[in-house]
Amino acid sequence: MKFSPLFWPIQFKNGIIYILDETLLPQKLAYIKARNYKEACRAIKEMKTRAVGQVLLVMYIFLQLVKQKKQKDLVKVAKVVNATRPTLSFKFLTDMVLGWAKSRVPLEKCILGFLEGLKCSRIRQAEEASKLIKNGDVILTHCNISGLMPLIAEFCAREGKGVKFFATETRPYLQGSRLTAWELKRQGFDVTLITDGMVAAVMSQGKVNKVIVGADHLAQNGDIANKIGTYAIAVLARHFKIPFYVLCPPASGLKSGKDIKIEIRPDKEMLEYQGLRLAPKGVKGYYPAFDVTPNGLITKHIPLEIKR
Amino acid sequence: MKFSPLFWPIQFKNGIIYILDETLLPQKLAYIKARNYKEACRAIKEMKTRAVGQVLLVMYIFLQLVKQKKQKDLVKVAKVVNATRPTLSFKFLTDMVLGWAKSRVPLEKCILGFLEGLKCSRIRQAEEASKLIKNGDVILTHCNISGLMPLIAEFCAREGKGVKFFATETRPYLQGSRLTAWELKRQGFDVTLITDGMVAAVMSQGKVNKVIVGADHLAQNGDIANKIGTYAIAVLARHFKIPFYVLCPPASGLKSGKDIKIEIRPDKEMLEYQGLRLAPKGVKGYYPAFDVTPNGLITKHIPLEIKR
Repeated sequence: MKFSPLFWPIQFKNGIIYILDETLLPQKLAYIKARNYKEACRAIKEMKTRAVGQVLLVMYIFLQLVKQKKQKDLVKVAKVVNATRPTLSFKFLTDMVLGWAKSRVPLEKCILGFLEGLKCSRIRQAEEASKLIKNGDVILTHCNISGLMPLIAEFCAREGKGVKFFATETRPYLQGSRLTAWELKRQGFDVTLITDGMVAAVMSQGKVNKVIVGADHLAQNGDIANKIGTYAIAVLARHFKIPFYVLCPPASGLKSGKDIKIEIRPDKEMLEYQGLRLAPKGVKGYYPAFDVTPNGLITKHIPLEIKR
Repeated sequence: MKFSPLFWPIQFKNGIIYILDETLLPQKLAYIKARNYKEACRAIKEMKTRAVGQVLLVMYIFLQLVKQKKQKDLVKVAKVVNATRPTLSFKFLTDMVLGWAKSRVPLEKCILGFLEGLKCSRIRQAEEASKLIKNGDVILTHCNISGLMPLIAEFCAREGKGVKFFATETRPYLQGSRLTAWELKRQGFDVTLITDGMVAAVMSQGKVNKVIVGADHLAQNGDIANKIGTYAIAVLARHFKIPFYVLCPPASGLKSGKDIKIEIRPDKEMLEYQGLRLAPKGVKGYYPAFDVTPNGLITKHIPLEIKR
């Protein structure tokens, strides 16, 4: 089974954290070196890595701290990590680490055990999702689910099920185009790009028959936060009677989607692209990085099951 | 009352047609010269002008032909015009011209009379739309309605009604960003850009309370074809209980939206932007330039009333 580089985008070697720079993809497959937690946190803020990459990075930040024999800084570093970006529940992760630190098991062992468990769980999650797919299905996806989409396709192929994909380009960061289409094509799967506005057209024309997306946050009531644009696709899927599946992280402590803090990013990131100005000078933009899809629009959650 | 350059984007002076090159906006306000119908038709194919610009251009093509004393070529030129792009009903326009040519009134007079009537009708259409707007409304719009949106805002201002706008950027050609936001800002109105995927977010947050879009085609049953992305906004407006208004051209002879031929454009136009490659090499795209919004999702049509 082949894995996308996005499946495990962070590596730890000889005390250094290597972060796959997702902003350079697909032109360049390159890693940023983080020698300490400050450099690592900067990479989160600058969206060099996202989604599962952020989870891995948090764990490797603490692993690095242990290797550097700086365990006394755990609480301080946890606070800095928690303040990087609002929508993923960093506190959930850092609290877990702080909890481990109080146990009798060495922290390094806890972190490595967690990461090993996470890897297995992610593979299982992709396998579960693949069971929902029938031969000949065409899946619409949005943004990027960190290597899970090609893995789902690999599981389908192993079962002799043919599956094709439509990927929204996912403005403004184009993760659908730069990451999802790239990783699917790279592993030989059939993928067609559309702009975010074309979803109703391809659904109404019967070109796709299932939606699978990821989630950055799952609340207790089943609401999810995911990349901006997901909510619209969920409403459209309901309108066109197409199942809408979500690959979820474990539920956070938040009661409902209303409690999830949505990050508003600088509008410059949508008004420019790689230095090219897209909008007239002086025009303002509004850029919520995520939206919240209510539980009622979700056909099925496919959970990531993690032992703590 | 101030007019946007997009309200009347084609001019005719000394036998030459001047076409506002909308692909250069907002960086440059420049006109392409068309000395004959072939040059003019190329500008349509290359999407240098669109919507009402296409209507004006067709009329000026025939006016130029009359001035060049080539009335014998009317039928030949009508065929070439009809073949430029499929979604706007060029045949409706050229048939009208061919009809006038058979009447006793000189063709030049018919064309100039039609254009004068069109100008008045468009102003009236904007005024009608402005009556639907209440003080404090925030209008979401998509793509560009050729100068009508700032005109609607001017009518509101005249009545002392404050109105703000959200414009989708409208990928892949970014007409919402390059044209709508530009012309609104230029006339001093408050406009905020969002990406096409943010519509559900701004609707669910109550940031917009009305939708006004244009239409490239109106079928007999009230279905409309408009820029790709419109259909999704109509479904979302219904979901969030927001009125969805459409500024329409006169109805064509087609029975329903199913009969409207939707143009599929080269995927290169969505995979690249101004020479910058957005998608990985070798990945394919699907680019229907328009979608069809069913009559049932439209709160009210605001027709363009033209005397023939």
